Amino acid sequence: MSHSKAFQLKLYVFFNVIELLNTRELQPLARLHENQSTHTCTHLHTDMAKTSENHQCMDDLKAERERCSFNKHEITTLLDGGEDKTKQRRKIEKVFLSDPEFLDATRPEYLSHEDRYANELRKACHMIRKFNEDEEIQQLVGQMDGIRTLMGSGLGVALTKDGNPLALHFIMFMPSIMGQGTVEQQGEWMGRAWSGEIIGTYAQTELGHGTFLRGLETTATYDPSTEEFVLHSPTITSTKWWPGGLGKTANYAVVMAQLYTRGRCHGPHPFIVQLRDEETHQSLPGVTLGEIGPRLGMNTNDNGFLCFSHHRIPRTHLLMKHSQVLQDGTYVRPANDKLAYGTMVFVRVAICFDTYRQLQRAVTIATRYSAIRRQSELVPGQPEPQILEYQTQQYKILPLIATVFGIHFAAQSVWQTYNDVTGSIHDGNLDLLPELHTLSCGLKALSSSDAANGVETCRLSCGGHGYLASSNLPRIYTTTTAAITYEGENTVMWLQVARYLIKSFREARQGHRLHHSVSYLTPRPASTHALQTNLSNAALVEAFRVAVSHLVGEVAARLQGQCDSGMVFEHAWNACSVQLARCAQVHIRYFTCEEFLSGVEKAEVSEATRGVLMRLCRLYLVFHIIGNQGDFLRSGALTPSDMTTLEEELATLLAALRPDAVSLVDSFDIHDRILDSTLGCWDGNVYERMFEEAKKSPLNQKDVPDAYYKYLRPLMKASL
Amino acid sequence: MSHSKAFQLKLYVFFNVIELLNTRELQPLARLHENQSTHTCTHLHTDMAKTSENHQCMDDLKAERERCSFNKHEITTLLDGGEDKTKQRRKIEKVFLSDPEFLDATRPEYLSHEDRYANELRKACHMIRKFNEDEEIQQLVGQMDGIRTLMGSGLGVALTKDGNPLALHFIMFMPSIMGQGTVEQQGEWMGRAWSGEIIGTYAQTELGHGTFLRGLETTATYDPSTEEFVLHSPTITSTKWWPGGLGKTANYAVVMAQLYTRGRCHGPHPFIVQLRDEETHQSLPGVTLGEIGPRLGMNTNDNGFLCFSHHRIPRTHLLMKHSQVLQDGTYVRPANDKLAYGTMVFVRVAICFDTYRQLQRAVTIATRYSAIRRQSELVPGQPEPQILEYQTQQYKILPLIATVFGIHFAAQSVWQTYNDVTGSIHDGNLDLLPELHTLSCGLKALSSSDAANGVETCRLSCGGHGYLASSNLPRIYTTTTAAITYEGENTVMWLQVARYLIKSFREARQGHRLHHSVSYLTPRPASTHALQTNLSNAALVEAFRVAVSHLVGEVAARLQGQCDSGMVFEHAWNACSVQLARCAQVHIRYFTCEEFLSGVEKAEVSEATRGVLMRLCRLYLVFHIIGNQGDFLRSGALTPSDMTTLEEELATLLAALRPDAVSLVDSFDIHDRILDSTLGCWDGNVYERMFEEAKKSPLNQKDVPDAYYKYLRPLMKASL
Repeated sequence: MSHSKAFQLKLYVFFNVIELLNTRELQPLARLHENQSTHTCTHLHTDMAKTSENHQCMDDLKAERERCSFNKHEITTLLDGGEDKTKQRRKIEKVFLSDPEFLDATRPEYLSHEDRYANELRKACHMIRKFNEDEEIQQLVGQMDGIRTLMGSGLGVALTKDGNPLALHFIMFMPSIMGQGTVEQQGEWMGRAWSGEIIGTYAQTELGHGTFLRGLETTATYDPSTEEFVLHSPTITSTKWWPGGLGKTANYAVVMAQLYTRGRCHGPHPFIVQLRDEETHQSLPGVTLGEIGPRLGMNTNDNGFLCFSHHRIPRTHLLMKHSQVLQDGTYVRPANDKLAYGTMVFVRVAICFDTYRQLQRAVTIATRYSAIRRQSELVPGQPEPQILEYQTQQYKILPLIATVFGIHFAAQSVWQTYNDVTGSIHDGNLDLLPELHTLSCGLKALSSSDAANGVETCRLSCGGHGYLASSNLPRIYTTTTAAITYEGENTVMWLQVARYLIKSFREARQGHRLHHSVSYLTPRPASTHALQTNLSNAALVEAFRVAVSHLVGEVAARLQGQCDSGMVFEHAWNACSVQLARCAQVHIRYFTCEEFLSGVEKAEVSEATRGVLMRLCRLYLVFHIIGNQGDFLRSGALTPSDMTTLEEELATLLAALRPDAVSLVDSFDIHDRILDSTLGCWDGNVYERMFEEAKKSPLNQKDVPDAYYKYLRPLMKASL
Repeated sequence: MSHSKAFQLKLYVFFNVIELLNTRELQPLARLHENQSTHTCTHLHTDMAKTSENHQCMDDLKAERERCSFNKHEITTLLDGGEDKTKQRRKIEKVFLSDPEFLDATRPEYLSHEDRYANELRKACHMIRKFNEDEEIQQLVGQMDGIRTLMGSGLGVALTKDGNPLALHFIMFMPSIMGQGTVEQQGEWMGRAWSGEIIGTYAQTELGHGTFLRGLETTATYDPSTEEFVLHSPTITSTKWWPGGLGKTANYAVVMAQLYTRGRCHGPHPFIVQLRDEETHQSLPGVTLGEIGPRLGMNTNDNGFLCFSHHRIPRTHLLMKHSQVLQDGTYVRPANDKLAYGTMVFVRVAICFDTYRQLQRAVTIATRYSAIRRQSELVPGQPEPQILEYQTQQYKILPLIATVFGIHFAAQSVWQTYNDVTGSIHDGNLDLLPELHTLSCGLKALSSSDAANGVETCRLSCGGHGYLASSNLPRIYTTTTAAITYEGENTVMWLQVARYLIKSFREARQGHRLHHSVSYLTPRPASTHALQTNLSNAALVEAFRVAVSHLVGEVAARLQGQCDSGMVFEHAWNACSVQLARCAQVHIRYFTCEEFLSGVEKAEVSEATRGVLMRLCRLYLVFHIIGNQGDFLRSGALTPSDMTTLEEELATLLAALRPDAVSLVDSFDIHDRILDSTLGCWDGNVYERMFEEAKKSPLNQKDVPDAYYKYLRPLMKASL
């Protein structure tokens, strides 16, 4: 097994497994009736009619599952990428889920900040040890075809999980050395990193500098007299801030710093920097390290700060695959600056897969709970219906099930293109890179914002109980929303997409041939802009084309007008940027609709399964056309009466998909332990699970809390 | 001072003060340079050019403040409700902020669940004691005009603050006794509750029952032989679930239960129930109590569960102001069922005030930080601009400043109407109640969702740092989003508004005269539907009228069509409910636009101040018309070319308001301690404050964490 291949495989296991950490075993049903000995619960439920009530919940799900109109397993394997991938995923899940070391003694929310970190570190270390020692796992991993499977199976979730302090070691430290180090440097560092002998992270963003890489302030100045780089943080804003694992865990980091040699700055470059003593783990002189404090989520991944005071490292610690600094200080520039694009495409597509998996979890929870929860009256005097019967509830949930597939097919397509062109990129053919880069930026932004908004919609659709930690929806949200900001803040991403759109639009006007994803911007004879005569899928996709072309044309004209009236291009760009960002959003939505449709058409599934997928695809199209109706009406792509027709069709689609809702989320095949939700578990025994979780609160271990004696009693007795 | 008046005044203090709890003292600038003795920071910043950098941040805000085009103080007093109100608010803030007992030793996020609760209980108890003992506060409160001031000053924030376990005692327990108890019952309970001798809460929602009151399962069955009610929880889903303070703090509760007497159920009624022994605080036999476990936010307000096993209470514990049960079990029904509406209106308007105050905080933080943060290049080669220079950033923030005023004026108007009609309601004139009830439902839904989305937009507009707890944006969000669900879930609220709209629409068609807020639904001659010839404020408001009339008309026709084709009304209603909810949203938006405009026109301010308010109002109108453009285009209220004009105007408005942005949020006059944000503090010294906050993390008190020795070292040394 090659170094690189083995590394990918190890990554695969790591990422799959991170997903399982932090998940705690939900109390099995059988154990519910024991363990009622805590004083608060001694007389609890003694005469409650609970059996019949539980049965109702479970019967509700059973009835839902019996209505299924399609083959669930076909969808599971479609999303996994094949029958064998599904089997392997389940096997690996089984290996790790059966290991009691990965269980938590208590919910992390009950612990202090320090104890939460320690508990997460415990599991992270066990995972590495387990892999190093366990041949079964190594063998399982050997059957995988590496990075492709990894993408579809968990890298993304790993990137954003609530807090593995070793995650960045695998996600960023080792890949940076592999991608940017020379063969010698890989040999020097990879073995040690692999075994866990050294733990690294990746330190790029600074207190005052995020998305704009060129603004970094940390300097690495070459001193030829000692053949060393001197790392320094000249201002408080130059402090490295945010890297996971940096605060207390890592003893090494790949640090991005402005490279100075012979008095000239050559921009940001990556350096391997030792941060802590390998024997004592104490931070080295000249290195200031710490944790940045609590966050909305991801509180155990040890995000840290770092500053240098004239800290010296050997010249050979500059990662020199692309650029080099020779002993005498000569700077050798890279053959091609654009190769780094490839890594960014990779990471951004990974985020799409990640966010859609988070959305899968959330919508699984919301859908199952909506089939169990009963509320109000649809018809006076009749029993309370499942809330999934309400059209407003269907409207919250079903488009999100469709979104899962939309992101899946679009990301899959970009991923496929990436693989197809990787070869030609390395051969120096960079023609396809800008388009690929644009699609990955746009899809990262679309998927992260759709997923974060979708998760929140799911949480709110569960009413008050969605606010409970035991639903797991709060954590899924706090994790997913972070993806809006990291690896390229979404507004910045949209404006990059817009830049490509405007450039393509102008090139088309000059007679250039455009790449596939923007070829619709090529001017066409007016007749093709005629109104649709029907509302078929093809017609709706065409309507999208007309709408987005019109949008791009309008903003391009406005931009040009401002430039013509004497505005500097950059200021004109800024003055149009709200509209530019909207163009980008509609463009990527259009791309996703097209890929969704062609993905369903090409899927190797039975006609029944294609039927439900096609209904979802149609819902996705109709939902987003109604949501952006102004663009369609203003461009003449659709008429007001088309819109009324589509609104009526939306109602029909919701009703048609409702019977398959539970089966659709079942087909996502998410293990109860990975779902980790009292509201979403497979058996539907929601209320007993909520009660069981609540009973575990440390505050419930005593009837009268200690704080009563200290604070409440003196107050209550003061007036007596 | 009357009992009722004194009660209101006490509430005022309580709610103002809750807002100040949980806020910790931000490290004063002067102390930043001391206290660098922790090992990790010994050599920190020794040679950083930090002074100039700090000055830049502070100079940035200074320059912003110098550009102010209006009179800030006028806006402060406008929002407070008058000069004297501003003075009193500041005085009370001062009294409480100068009390060191309200400071926290550490961020709550660092503590365990139990310790967080204890810390919050400590401050809550101190607050009551302070009021009971401090004449100055009692006197300050004596100058207030009670409930009106309370509404504009903090009740809402109190309702949603991250966790005061005594909040429900004041917000719900005492008001329930005042509103639903007889004079004798008030006499029996209010004195004891007031002094803190007993602590109560309000227990309504159950594990399986939220918004739908009639679905409650807890029973209170009258036993005439002992003149007692027997409270019982017949199923697991009947467990009371969520009430704040119920888990460990309260020893009494007002419990809503289905009243049975003489074998008949009379629906849910309120009962005063003792839960814990007054001497030992132990839960009583037949009462099971506990805490429900961790949540997305509000983790210290002790949300609890409660179930009864045939628990007996005296007959006289039924709150009997409206309904009564006589000794022999005779049920006496209330004179009028609708009186309870008044309380609901009150609470929902309170939520509007509350949510707009949360949004004020968030947008203050985001605006100030956007004037300090510098990033990227607008024009290549030039220094990094303040991010507030980017149009996309202005587009995130400025409409939210406008939203604060929009909610303020609309809520103020409903509040005024409520006060105007309260008298006539008590005289038995209930004509105005349905309209008032509808407006309060709709405005609660609009303001809570606008505020929650707005807070999240603010958080995301601060990039990664908005994700840090020290920005305070995470907590503001987790608190604000809860308002979407409690006191009437928003989707349910929208459908109530829709019901009133459809009813009014039908009445108008039958020639009935409609109430003011829906009078636009009265059929008009076709000519008034003609297209606007200009885009004045009045014309835009009129366009709103046309758009919403058209929407209501369309859905009413669809509803009627489905009924005509044989569908039961309730099913037809459900099948149209997505569109019905949208009608309601646009109707309430229209109402808010109208009130915003007339509020600005009537405000007693200088012309310069009215100028900036008018620009904000215009931005609000234009922003929401563009956001709902489909409704305007389809109804013919506006043309595609109008829309293009409005989009250009939007860009102009953003540019025009940008120079006043910082001064506008300054005029909200939020004390740094109440803001509690490293990113939003008055002096703009953002980065040093972030660093100081981070240094306080318990993990930073040791260079090498204990968990290293336990977990990491064995792993790192295993391969050696």
